[in-house]
Amino acid sequence: MNYEIYVTYRAGIFDPAGATARRGLEQIGFDGIHDLSIGKYIRLNTDATREQVTEMCEKLLANPVIEDYRIVETED
Amino acid sequence: MNYEIYVTYRAGIFDPAGATARRGLEQIGFDGIHDLSIGKYIRLNTDATREQVTEMCEKLLANPVIEDYRIVETED
Repeated sequence: MNYEIYVTYRAGIFDPAGATARRGLEQIGFDGIHDLSIGKYIRLNTDATREQVTEMCEKLLANPVIEDYRIVETED
Repeated sequence: MNYEIYVTYRAGIFDPAGATARRGLEQIGFDGIHDLSIGKYIRLNTDATREQVTEMCEKLLANPVIEDYRIVETED
């Protein structure tokens, strides 16, 4: 089974990579950026069930204290 | 306009974070992982056009030598 997992910072948690990228884009002339966040895009091919993938997120792939994650089963 | 950008390593390029996560999952007992890759999931709210967002990817958000990127316009 293929899964895609989207890991993002929870509301209110500082996103250092996103802040740095935004500043960099502004410095090279891109104005009008209202928001920019950088999370993780994980692609996983495994025999595991969705419940097991949730457990992988809780234990290692995400940090539930500061991050949210969304798991999507995909066809390809 | 809102965009989601998915940045992934090009075929054949080593993915150190993905390899480390896979080994970590195996060490805590998750077997049957056939493939695991970790890319970037960027969310961007900007006045920029899609062409300008492509330029942002080429110049700063991705490294076109080793990474592919996919830009999706979203509603929310």
